[in-house]
Amino acid sequence: MAALRAFKGIMVTGYSHRPVTRAKAGRLLAGVRIFDDAATCVEGAELVVLASPVCTFRRIFEDISPSLGAGCIVTDVGSTKVLVSRWAAEKLPAGVCYVGSHPVAGSERRGLEFARVDLFQGSTCILTGPRRGTAAARLEAFWKGLGCNVEFMTAARHDRILANVSHVPHVLAAALVNAVDPGELRYCGTGFLDTSRIAAGPPSVWSDVLLTNSADIVRGLEKTTAELSKLKKAVAAGDRRAIGRLLGKARNRRRTLG
Amino acid sequence: MAALRAFKGIMVTGYSHRPVTRAKAGRLLAGVRIFDDAATCVEGAELVVLASPVCTFRRIFEDISPSLGAGCIVTDVGSTKVLVSRWAAEKLPAGVCYVGSHPVAGSERRGLEFARVDLFQGSTCILTGPRRGTAAARLEAFWKGLGCNVEFMTAARHDRILANVSHVPHVLAAALVNAVDPGELRYCGTGFLDTSRIAAGPPSVWSDVLLTNSADIVRGLEKTTAELSKLKKAVAAGDRRAIGRLLGKARNRRRTLG
Repeated sequence: MAALRAFKGIMVTGYSHRPVTRAKAGRLLAGVRIFDDAATCVEGAELVVLASPVCTFRRIFEDISPSLGAGCIVTDVGSTKVLVSRWAAEKLPAGVCYVGSHPVAGSERRGLEFARVDLFQGSTCILTGPRRGTAAARLEAFWKGLGCNVEFMTAARHDRILANVSHVPHVLAAALVNAVDPGELRYCGTGFLDTSRIAAGPPSVWSDVLLTNSADIVRGLEKTTAELSKLKKAVAAGDRRAIGRLLGKARNRRRTLG
Repeated sequence: MAALRAFKGIMVTGYSHRPVTRAKAGRLLAGVRIFDDAATCVEGAELVVLASPVCTFRRIFEDISPSLGAGCIVTDVGSTKVLVSRWAAEKLPAGVCYVGSHPVAGSERRGLEFARVDLFQGSTCILTGPRRGTAAARLEAFWKGLGCNVEFMTAARHDRILANVSHVPHVLAAALVNAVDPGELRYCGTGFLDTSRIAAGPPSVWSDVLLTNSADIVRGLEKTTAELSKLKKAVAAGDRRAIGRLLGKARNRRRTLG
């Protein structure tokens, strides 16, 4: 939807492995031609964007490879990049260029009915891979056209940062919800609702994220557990100064984010 | 504001220890008479509501005691109740009845400029203490008049539940923010923003909460850390089934909350 609005005269095609999603897309996405198989969908494409759980990309690279022409750019909007770049290098044919994309936008809700044409407006899109080359420049122009601020970094750096700012928070939210007695949940206020919101995200998508970035996530969880221990120790000791210092540090940082 | 709207013909008076807040209250709260000292403010009152950091209540009980008439009800809207009930029993004169209130409503924002007349509409208000007696019935009528659903429980049960659904999430949010490299914060999306939002709350208020409910909070943190360990182990082992089960459990619970 956003691409059709941003780029005049382009053709957008779509594929989902689920027939019900294809039918819904046919109804909801005016101007998008929906195909019943991935290989036909990408024939003649200049740009292919994968947007399914990360672990499906390997197989999709294999499925679409025979249909990809030279100069085609393949990207994805998954949340981890190191393994995906490796799969792309292994599976995609020569002459096809893979660059990873991570538009940092979205919510815990999933489905075409939550599509928003302005989803990317003003958000950051991280591209993984070298900035040089035609493919990188064209992909950068694509995301900028949708309203993103684009930044390049290596897949390794991307995965490390996203572990800390996205994957670890997801694990924390899930642990928080699992630790509360279900009978107590009805006493929760906006604080609990906010803190746990992402735990409502689809486990299929998030399982793939956790599985494909496990080392960075484990390191991130260890840092968070260490901070948690400092706070727990201060609370257990009734140490007002330490509690005030730790909460004050968190507050000052959090307030910079709006 | 909510009380003036709900109960015709009442008089509402207000006091803050900060002169600047009293001046702001004079400007923003039409129909509320602001006093320069707490003792004068409560003279002749049928109901006194304390709404400052929990640890200030002990001293305020002392300060206002000489001005409280027989039959006056004293309550507070603090987030912990066991210690406060003890202070009330020690400090308030005979003939004055203390019942704790905890309207589970509000946000991380603080200040008169964020006041909302409909803040309590539809929210739960927990009253701590026995349900029997005139004071309990009158306080229940007060909160119901503001639109709350009222529930009675002991102070001990209140503090245990709130540790799990409110105080532990606050500690988690603070630990999460403190664990992230400040340079990485600009890559955060809505997930991080939601999960960490309450860390922007005022440290003075939250320090008092953590200090007055330390045992329950430490137990709650231990349960959360245990859940976190399960997830970390599953991630480190690349155990797709365990990850899916833990995320699925969290998702199902979280989705019941809307």
